[in-house]
Amino acid sequence: MTAEQFADRHIGPGRADERRMLQAVGYDSIDELMDAAIPEVIRWHGTLDLPEPAGEREAIAELRALAAGNTVAVSMIGLGYHGTHTPAVIRRNVLENPAWYTAYTPYQPEISQGRLEALLNFQTMVTDLTGLATANASMLDEGTAAAEAMTLARRASRSKSCVYVVDADTLPQTIAVIGSRAEPLGIEVRVLDLDVEELPAEFFGLHLQYPGASGAVREHRDLVEAAHAVGALVTVAADLLALTLLRPPGEIGVDIAAGSTQRFGVPMGFGGPHAGYLAVRSGLERMLPGRLVGVSRDADGNAAYRLALQTREQHIRRERATSNICTAQVLLAVMAGMYAVYHGPDGLRVIAERTRGMAARLAAGLRAGGVQVTDVAFFDTVTAVVPSRAAEVVAAAAERHVNLRLVDADRVGISCDETTTGAHLEAVWAAFGVPVFDGDGDVALPPALRRTSDFLTHPVFRTHHSETAMLRYLRRLADFDYALDRGMIPLGSCTMKLNATTEMEPVSWPEFAHIHPFAPESQTAGYREMIAQLEAWLAEVTGYDAVSVQPNAGSQGELAGLLAIRAYHASRGAGQRDVCLIPSSAHGTNAASAVMAGMRVVVVGCDADGNVDLVDLDAKIDKHRDALAAIMVTYPSTHGVYETGIASLCAKVHDAGGQVYVDGANLNALVGFAKPGRFGADVSHLNLHKTFCIPHGGGGPGVGPVAVRAHLAPFLPGDPGAAHVGGRPAISAAKYGSAGILPIPWAYLRMMGAQGLVRATGVAVLAANYVAARLREHFPVLYAGNKGLVAHECILDLRPLTKATGVSVDDVAKRLIDYGFHAPTMSFPVAGTLMVEPTESEDLAELDRFCDAMIAIRAEIDKVGSGEWPAGDNPLANAPHTAAMVSADEWPHPYSRSVGAYPAGVQRAGRYWPPVRRIDGAYGDRNLVCSCPSPEAFED
Amino acid sequence: MTAEQFADRHIGPGRADERRMLQAVGYDSIDELMDAAIPEVIRWHGTLDLPEPAGEREAIAELRALAAGNTVAVSMIGLGYHGTHTPAVIRRNVLENPAWYTAYTPYQPEISQGRLEALLNFQTMVTDLTGLATANASMLDEGTAAAEAMTLARRASRSKSCVYVVDADTLPQTIAVIGSRAEPLGIEVRVLDLDVEELPAEFFGLHLQYPGASGAVREHRDLVEAAHAVGALVTVAADLLALTLLRPPGEIGVDIAAGSTQRFGVPMGFGGPHAGYLAVRSGLERMLPGRLVGVSRDADGNAAYRLALQTREQHIRRERATSNICTAQVLLAVMAGMYAVYHGPDGLRVIAERTRGMAARLAAGLRAGGVQVTDVAFFDTVTAVVPSRAAEVVAAAAERHVNLRLVDADRVGISCDETTTGAHLEAVWAAFGVPVFDGDGDVALPPALRRTSDFLTHPVFRTHHSETAMLRYLRRLADFDYALDRGMIPLGSCTMKLNATTEMEPVSWPEFAHIHPFAPESQTAGYREMIAQLEAWLAEVTGYDAVSVQPNAGSQGELAGLLAIRAYHASRGAGQRDVCLIPSSAHGTNAASAVMAGMRVVVVGCDADGNVDLVDLDAKIDKHRDALAAIMVTYPSTHGVYETGIASLCAKVHDAGGQVYVDGANLNALVGFAKPGRFGADVSHLNLHKTFCIPHGGGGPGVGPVAVRAHLAPFLPGDPGAAHVGGRPAISAAKYGSAGILPIPWAYLRMMGAQGLVRATGVAVLAANYVAARLREHFPVLYAGNKGLVAHECILDLRPLTKATGVSVDDVAKRLIDYGFHAPTMSFPVAGTLMVEPTESEDLAELDRFCDAMIAIRAEIDKVGSGEWPAGDNPLANAPHTAAMVSADEWPHPYSRSVGAYPAGVQRAGRYWPPVRRIDGAYGDRNLVCSCPSPEAFED
Repeated sequence: MTAEQFADRHIGPGRADERRMLQAVGYDSIDELMDAAIPEVIRWHGTLDLPEPAGEREAIAELRALAAGNTVAVSMIGLGYHGTHTPAVIRRNVLENPAWYTAYTPYQPEISQGRLEALLNFQTMVTDLTGLATANASMLDEGTAAAEAMTLARRASRSKSCVYVVDADTLPQTIAVIGSRAEPLGIEVRVLDLDVEELPAEFFGLHLQYPGASGAVREHRDLVEAAHAVGALVTVAADLLALTLLRPPGEIGVDIAAGSTQRFGVPMGFGGPHAGYLAVRSGLERMLPGRLVGVSRDADGNAAYRLALQTREQHIRRERATSNICTAQVLLAVMAGMYAVYHGPDGLRVIAERTRGMAARLAAGLRAGGVQVTDVAFFDTVTAVVPSRAAEVVAAAAERHVNLRLVDADRVGISCDETTTGAHLEAVWAAFGVPVFDGDGDVALPPALRRTSDFLTHPVFRTHHSETAMLRYLRRLADFDYALDRGMIPLGSCTMKLNATTEMEPVSWPEFAHIHPFAPESQTAGYREMIAQLEAWLAEVTGYDAVSVQPNAGSQGELAGLLAIRAYHASRGAGQRDVCLIPSSAHGTNAASAVMAGMRVVVVGCDADGNVDLVDLDAKIDKHRDALAAIMVTYPSTHGVYETGIASLCAKVHDAGGQVYVDGANLNALVGFAKPGRFGADVSHLNLHKTFCIPHGGGGPGVGPVAVRAHLAPFLPGDPGAAHVGGRPAISAAKYGSAGILPIPWAYLRMMGAQGLVRATGVAVLAANYVAARLREHFPVLYAGNKGLVAHECILDLRPLTKATGVSVDDVAKRLIDYGFHAPTMSFPVAGTLMVEPTESEDLAELDRFCDAMIAIRAEIDKVGSGEWPAGDNPLANAPHTAAMVSADEWPHPYSRSVGAYPAGVQRAGRYWPPVRRIDGAYGDRNLVCSCPSPEAFED
Repeated sequence: MTAEQFADRHIGPGRADERRMLQAVGYDSIDELMDAAIPEVIRWHGTLDLPEPAGEREAIAELRALAAGNTVAVSMIGLGYHGTHTPAVIRRNVLENPAWYTAYTPYQPEISQGRLEALLNFQTMVTDLTGLATANASMLDEGTAAAEAMTLARRASRSKSCVYVVDADTLPQTIAVIGSRAEPLGIEVRVLDLDVEELPAEFFGLHLQYPGASGAVREHRDLVEAAHAVGALVTVAADLLALTLLRPPGEIGVDIAAGSTQRFGVPMGFGGPHAGYLAVRSGLERMLPGRLVGVSRDADGNAAYRLALQTREQHIRRERATSNICTAQVLLAVMAGMYAVYHGPDGLRVIAERTRGMAARLAAGLRAGGVQVTDVAFFDTVTAVVPSRAAEVVAAAAERHVNLRLVDADRVGISCDETTTGAHLEAVWAAFGVPVFDGDGDVALPPALRRTSDFLTHPVFRTHHSETAMLRYLRRLADFDYALDRGMIPLGSCTMKLNATTEMEPVSWPEFAHIHPFAPESQTAGYREMIAQLEAWLAEVTGYDAVSVQPNAGSQGELAGLLAIRAYHASRGAGQRDVCLIPSSAHGTNAASAVMAGMRVVVVGCDADGNVDLVDLDAKIDKHRDALAAIMVTYPSTHGVYETGIASLCAKVHDAGGQVYVDGANLNALVGFAKPGRFGADVSHLNLHKTFCIPHGGGGPGVGPVAVRAHLAPFLPGDPGAAHVGGRPAISAAKYGSAGILPIPWAYLRMMGAQGLVRATGVAVLAANYVAARLREHFPVLYAGNKGLVAHECILDLRPLTKATGVSVDDVAKRLIDYGFHAPTMSFPVAGTLMVEPTESEDLAELDRFCDAMIAIRAEIDKVGSGEWPAGDNPLANAPHTAAMVSADEWPHPYSRSVGAYPAGVQRAGRYWPPVRRIDGAYGDRNLVCSCPSPEAFED
């Protein structure tokens, strides 16, 4: 009698289910199935060298012990990371609520209105505070937002210069990320102290920090005008809390604002995750990278939200894309937006004034004690000058559990925030050896820099200020949405599986939540031990030699991997190698990442079976032999197939001097059965938010570690906070990226152990083959590998049916909502198809419910095909059905209300109703509205 | 610039709202309103002596410090409290989910189907495991369940004896509670060691513990037969986990089973809350006290759940009731039931076998080391005999962080549970000074006592075993229900206000959750300090001299208060005083409690204004002067009025030698403005789940402290776990009752402070008067006090409208669901009326939404009155409307679908849909089904 196994909770089908599924697929055991499915050439027959699986309580106890290795000190380091109070109602009902954190990216807008509204609040908050026209729905962090601002400026600038000017008072980690991004693109970054140095004659963009890293609040108007005079764009990296008091950048003609919303209620988490932001002036909105929420209308003409301008995105534009970002930081953007909703403009102003007041008192006390404080206007941060004594002061403060910023040997930075108390100030004064100061600070902001304009004028920011009202608003929005807590989200290539509570709980613990990324190492031993273990386990699972968790999204992992390849070639004197081969079936992000890494993309075709065309590969290798840098392939392929040619492919590329990049998106089909690092790949990124159970959060956070073989290890990401990155690129703003959520994959691996992981992979593949077996006669399954088996997902081909009946993939996806499902992946990797990935976490009842729904939909399609229902007016064309529609006084449709509302097998009680009918995306793109619409827009 | 005030988050209306509301009511300020509303004779003009209010973070920090004063040790004490693993998915999605914890008692079954199903699971779990026919929906704890079993046995027994036999191997705290309950009822309790002592010739009931407190598992068949032979009923207090392995009591003819479900995933919480249970054999179901969930059908004939046999309850039967319990432990019963759902029968058996195996190994190790272990069959607990060394062994174990039970100088009890590990056994062996034992335990259960019957055969216990499936089941059920997280629950006399997240979070902390009630005092200093502070603050708020938090429901507080009065009279040689005056408007529980306290109830009439008829009071006092024990009144009255005669009433009763009991149900109208302990009352119970923010949990937990003036303090509840209760009654099984949730009221008082509490009371009264002012012209407001003002609630009189139109209070209540509201209190205290209590937490927008809905309903009633809609078929008679009904293919009603579905002002998107139509309660009472029905019953 042993303790309960977590794997039995994580994996949906019980043993009896498993037997029935095997029977349907035609195998006696999972082993036999996997032997048939996975090519022997890649098969790894060992046992993963992981600790014996821990039970849920043991894993929690171990994480408690690791957490105890961290010290929560008072953080006054600043540099873009600040103490903040997460309102408890937001923590419990967003961060800790599966309705929010298990949601997928809102590509199906009809079932995502709640988080789309929350993101529109976020965008409105950013535009109001920055004074700019349009903000996107969040960036990965301030550093990458600033880097995206740079490339945006380059595209939009009429200057031919390749020079990008960065003010020296910019956050050091931002400078590091900008530098790493600029180099492969041929951009020359010039870091200038604009207080004393002149702007160059030619440059395409200018980056300013506001307030500066030193705390200084400067008048930027002249610099903006000077930049515009030479055709350059200006980005201001602005602190949103400061902007409640300071004139916003948009009011002096700034083109772009970038920054972080971390201090709006999102814990520091040792560096992340939190939501960066990016906003642009009018005219640049169609050049914004990342996700943008906009208002459009539904089939009834009612206002409805959806992602706008999706054609900008890299999965459409591929190598012509100018950014590779996919994932945003939705969950954290929701939190930050809700923080603004809960406090409202008055509350934010109070917090800002209180913070500023603390800093002013601090400065006054230092001055009164004879310490020089740099004599500029400031908001929350002051820089004190203590010749040769800086390290000593910082150490004295640390003894008082207060972390300060060691700027250099002579200067100490001290940053206040909403958590700062009088006691903290006293500790700082004591560290400086000055007496407690009783007066107020008297340094007023210069009137010209004071904000005079109103902000957050929309009612949403002026309504939900009691906890009761806030709670209900959060519940109402959550109820609009469909997440994993309602049912299956069978998204091919996205691996929407269980995000177990035990994995999630430690994320809220103060010892993980409240650690500054630049806290002294003595305070972060627990974090670093956990991360080291996680990196080692990920290396073991993938067969690589080294892993860096720094990339805070899969796209960033791709970039990191490709930059490692680039640097590797350069280190061997082969800097000319710049061709990246990418199969035509690849995700668009691959191509975009390659371009960002300074490579040229050469496409390799696929054969009729969907596999990489090895003949074309040979041809392309021949053609580009001397320039060949790498090939990027996904394995199993984006077609959901274990391609047998993979080993041969790797060999061919290696023989030509290239490196092999295996996109880890589909790792859930490999864990325990094959290791990319062993079957020929040199580098992969992993998606911890897919295979390793970090929840998708409605579109982020993601984590995309990069894993490499030993020869590439020297080129892994460096510490962006270190003064010198030492040649290693800065991929994210923080050394360990989104460290705050790494307890999740740690717990998953710790609790599954080798055996659990193997079983999970087997059941995931079994489930996909079960679905394929049940649906094959109703929808052709496109592509298969050995013995007609798919890997962990299958593609259902709707194109013949669409051709015959006019019923589109969209219609089926929307009709699935009526059946109580989130749609599978639509039209990727093949237009006109649906890609289904059931994962190991769905039990047989749910798999059958899905198959039954698809079969019933097939029968509905046939009724359209037979003419029983007209093409334009049938349950598919009109899907999804809202409660308002099916209960309308008029019913003009040629099918009954009950057929529309409750198709076969749908339980009447508890039926999920989307709040809007099908949304017209194009309308919203033509009439772009990306901030909160007036309440009247929603009147019935 | 000060830190944020919690009061501003707790109180719904902002200052601008407040001004608009005051204008509507006709006052310039809340002070002025309160001066007019509250009779000067009771008005208290001081400032509450409470600490300055803490912010949310400060309060959490202080609670963290208090929590740090507790020590979480390994608990092997047993005695009905066991270590247990709460499945994380249940903790997060039930205990920490406002959809579950902010719900009200399911008196409106149409909007409570989720928790009713969960409770039916609980009932089914209990009946299956005990082998009995019917279980109720939980009791307050094992001690009170056993006491209720005693009185049930007395009612059902054909014996005329007043003797109740309790086996000596019963939990000591159960014996204490039984004793305290028996005494005022004239029941003679005989505690006999039935291993050696004979049963008496005559007795009406027999209580057995199974397994015994010592751990012994005995064959009870002969005792059952002997008891039945003399007409006595047999109660077995059985451990449900043991019953997965042991022959259940129902299979040997036991009449009643009682006990605790704590070890089914509910933390010990220093004694509570957790769900007790009570189950009876067929034939006794209509005598079961407490709440009972049953299956009935709705207007469409579909199966639907609701509370069954409500006519049994004390609010109907009043002084003829035989139990006063109202509140159950719903939230905890839901958790325990879900624990069974999640583990299923196989999982429970594994846990039980593992637990038993640990105990067997422990015993074998002790024996191998030469320690005598009492030589009987056992399940999880063994008693070791160590002559004169028991204290030393217990101390040695404590040093190893393991708590054992000190039975007496020679014996040590050791109890295993699902959290027991090999390391724990080693610590115990070490404490005994015996070597580590490597073998297995070999003590098998006697075959005759082995369970052979199946249990938990219903599919619900065999389906939701993956975390994904469990999560979705919990979400599905939660979505069926309407709780405070959706909207207002304006329940008169129930004070459904904000249960703030910051108040709730500490409940989950291990330092509060995992403390055994009998843990050594050295481990509970933090708890005791918190409780002492809370008791002191409650005394300050109420004006009393002493408070006991032991009563774990308001009804228990009433009993405790009345027993204190009884004991006080007896102590003064006035034991003959046994008349309790109770106004006719009183809640039925008052009368039931009085009877349980051994008093005779004499009813005092009310005058035309709803106030206590002082003339009748004089007459009743005169008539019963020498026998007068007490008067029980509610203040403000159950009519929601500040009666001006209260001071005079108190004086009259005191003059006649009686004591004044003021029911604290309506304390939310007094806090900061009047203190019962100062205006003439001698004792009150408080409802911490009303005024002091403990959530209602869907029908429990409640906490009902008793507060007394100094002369009654010696008669407050004693420690039921102590060997001698010292004459003080044992009201609950644990000294501090439901200690685990006391951080909630502590945090509320700590964060509100004097000023916040005063403002809360003022706004609560303002809100009630605002509603009264807005609705008065549409529905007569019954009863008012000074200047036509109500207190914190108002009664809307529907009787004239009902008479004129046939539209009933029920119709209006159900129609309110369509408008998105929980109904107000129905037909209490006056049949045919609705009592509305808005509380201070609802903002003006929500108050107006409610008033608008009521006004719209009034217009609908007029359409029935005018004949525009027929009496039997109109939106009121057909309410609530389900989505299935309004989207049905046929619509035979004389009003439109949209009128039914979306009455005036209801937003289409996000409309809450009840899962069933109106439920026919009587049908279910005639056809009683109180366990899970087959899934077919729910087929559409």
